[in-house]
Amino acid sequence: MNIPRTSFPRVVIIGGGFAGVALAKKLSKQEVQVVLLDKHNYHTFQPLLYQVSTGGLEPDSIAYPIRKILKDFPNFYFRLASVEEIDTTTNQVKTNIGDLKFDYLVVASGSTTNFFGNSEIEKHSMAMKTIPQSLNLRSLILENFEDALLTSDLNERNALMNFVIVGGGPTGVELAGALAEIKKGILPKDYPDLDTRLAQIHIIQSGNCILKGMSANASQKAEDFLEKLGVNIWKNVRVTNYDGKTVTTNTDLTFQAATVVWAAGVKGATIKGLDAEDFVTRGNRIEVNEFSQVKGFEHIFAIGDIAAMVTKNHPEGFPMMAQPAIQQGDQLGDNLLRIIEEKPMQPFEYTDKGAMATIGRNKAVVDLKYWKFQGVFAWFVWMFVHLFFLIGFRNRMVVFVNWVYNYVRFDREARLIIRPFKSNHKV
Amino acid sequence: MNIPRTSFPRVVIIGGGFAGVALAKKLSKQEVQVVLLDKHNYHTFQPLLYQVSTGGLEPDSIAYPIRKILKDFPNFYFRLASVEEIDTTTNQVKTNIGDLKFDYLVVASGSTTNFFGNSEIEKHSMAMKTIPQSLNLRSLILENFEDALLTSDLNERNALMNFVIVGGGPTGVELAGALAEIKKGILPKDYPDLDTRLAQIHIIQSGNCILKGMSANASQKAEDFLEKLGVNIWKNVRVTNYDGKTVTTNTDLTFQAATVVWAAGVKGATIKGLDAEDFVTRGNRIEVNEFSQVKGFEHIFAIGDIAAMVTKNHPEGFPMMAQPAIQQGDQLGDNLLRIIEEKPMQPFEYTDKGAMATIGRNKAVVDLKYWKFQGVFAWFVWMFVHLFFLIGFRNRMVVFVNWVYNYVRFDREARLIIRPFKSNHKV
Repeated sequence: MNIPRTSFPRVVIIGGGFAGVALAKKLSKQEVQVVLLDKHNYHTFQPLLYQVSTGGLEPDSIAYPIRKILKDFPNFYFRLASVEEIDTTTNQVKTNIGDLKFDYLVVASGSTTNFFGNSEIEKHSMAMKTIPQSLNLRSLILENFEDALLTSDLNERNALMNFVIVGGGPTGVELAGALAEIKKGILPKDYPDLDTRLAQIHIIQSGNCILKGMSANASQKAEDFLEKLGVNIWKNVRVTNYDGKTVTTNTDLTFQAATVVWAAGVKGATIKGLDAEDFVTRGNRIEVNEFSQVKGFEHIFAIGDIAAMVTKNHPEGFPMMAQPAIQQGDQLGDNLLRIIEEKPMQPFEYTDKGAMATIGRNKAVVDLKYWKFQGVFAWFVWMFVHLFFLIGFRNRMVVFVNWVYNYVRFDREARLIIRPFKSNHKV
Repeated sequence: MNIPRTSFPRVVIIGGGFAGVALAKKLSKQEVQVVLLDKHNYHTFQPLLYQVSTGGLEPDSIAYPIRKILKDFPNFYFRLASVEEIDTTTNQVKTNIGDLKFDYLVVASGSTTNFFGNSEIEKHSMAMKTIPQSLNLRSLILENFEDALLTSDLNERNALMNFVIVGGGPTGVELAGALAEIKKGILPKDYPDLDTRLAQIHIIQSGNCILKGMSANASQKAEDFLEKLGVNIWKNVRVTNYDGKTVTTNTDLTFQAATVVWAAGVKGATIKGLDAEDFVTRGNRIEVNEFSQVKGFEHIFAIGDIAAMVTKNHPEGFPMMAQPAIQQGDQLGDNLLRIIEEKPMQPFEYTDKGAMATIGRNKAVVDLKYWKFQGVFAWFVWMFVHLFFLIGFRNRMVVFVNWVYNYVRFDREARLIIRPFKSNHKV
């Protein structure tokens, strides 16, 4: 990779997600050379992916060009690259566009969907971790309704209008709520010649509550909201397989469904060279100390979803969410500058800013440290916080316009099959 | 296709473009059953496709769900279908989702890119007639800049930054202007380690002027604007081939370019059954009379780009643009109702509302019937007219927000490679 060597130490960051971008910003205008590598040329605001899938937002408004984030920073380089291997003996990163030496390496490669080794589920169900995946899901949902119109086989029609969401975390809950609103507000108008009351939305949750990372109040209220919207919640049920037609579970329950969204878990997106048992712990994450250092190295770090920073209060590492990623990125930025100035590093301290999830129109749950609330006000807080954290003024404006429009008109106009999914990928 | 037969006559419309949608709206709330067939579930506002390609707009804001256009109309049916054949003896349309009888058939299938039989050009160059095509072009442009960074071969780098647009009509001119603005305003910031002055934009025009459908003033002024922006215009040059690396012409001129956009012509998108010589005239269009009737039929019509309505004043048919399509759709709607009421039809009369093209920031040309003007005011008129004709309040708002932002910030933030094109399709 033809990146000039300067007298500044070179920090290579793998991944332009929340962690990588927070770190890059901290290192701006400092005496380090920073090279950021990512498979995409944009940063994705993952918390709003479900709105892309359900036609509420356009993908372009929750993405932001990485080059633009970095444009005012001197000594910054971005390369669109897939990292294939990390060579910790020669301090090199091997990518599809060539190799690159590093002085400091920060792995911020995030997480991918965890199918827990079930390749049938992986093949037939939909994930929703990236923008292309979310657009595929959008297309599939709409294509299934179009197909439901065409069949006279009642079982097939029901399967085409049956949506099974596996996993009752924030992703599953928010997606289910959005689908329920589409069922209520849009389907009867768009498909007057289809009995859209037959459309069913199911959440299958292996544990005994949804939103299990949140308070009991939030969990219960979210369940009430979903039930009001007509979503079926199946608790203490574990999905065992999906062959493209039938979802089987560890109970007698089965579901005939043409759309299954797998939101039941994520795992660290490890990279060859740091994927051995020595480094990797629960959830396929790289174990790091409180300075984000990978075991055995002083100059190799991991932050965000990929990093399991095991501390006394967090024996399983921090949750795989935006907040720990951003804070670890910030902190590592400070620490790298301390290393370079030969000062001692500061250990990471997590500030829990709370958690929130939206279920639908006027329906959200918010857990702050000293205040937990649900309902209309929570919904406004949810919107405000998401607008605030979205990168870019244009993105905020466009998302805001969409939200106001969708709210006032009970509508979601981005119900467009731009790249058909079924005809291209599946039968 | 399971569409119920009622006592109303059935009008089948093939295509939800400007012509098909205008017709469908006219027939709303009348005593006819209307079935609209389209390959996409959305209407595309084609005049703004070039802004999608150049990262100025998101695709979702120039598309509109066809089902939503029709949602308040009784007796309306939409089906997502590719029409494969028209059987004029049994009055049936054959599609990928089954056959459909019609009482009246309206072909509004539009046009496709005309490569004039050159399969090498078709294989290697980019068309920009649909949203997926425009997104492919967006990805390719950005991927080529990313690749330009990686090569140390100067010739290859130049080819990657060389943009050849074949055809100096509105599409070619507007795309060239947008690329020139990207070169000036965005590339130096996004690619500080690349000599982006080397990026070249060429328009190759076989005739002796650009925008040949417009006034001499408009054409000349557009040329001045483009030259000011640094676009190279090659007149009286005809492209003879493009093998993926080199554009050859009928002169000594050749161009090494990784991006070639073919905007040199369109042809009618004929359908089997109406594609025989008896029906088709110049430009692969179906010849129709002044009532839009296809030769030999009283109940089969063609409107919009696909129709060549040859009249005394328009011996080659009307231009393949939005205005004639909309007006023919409107008129045919009235005439179909007249037929049903057993009244005589009215012949089509075209109201020429003028033509316009934008070249860039504060630079546009407008030809109205009695007033032709260029410059800043023309640019505002262009924007206002395009906002007005865009379908949907949300689309207008989002496009407006984007335009204001892009204008104030000299920016285009949708420079996202969401679906890589090169790695998926070409080497």
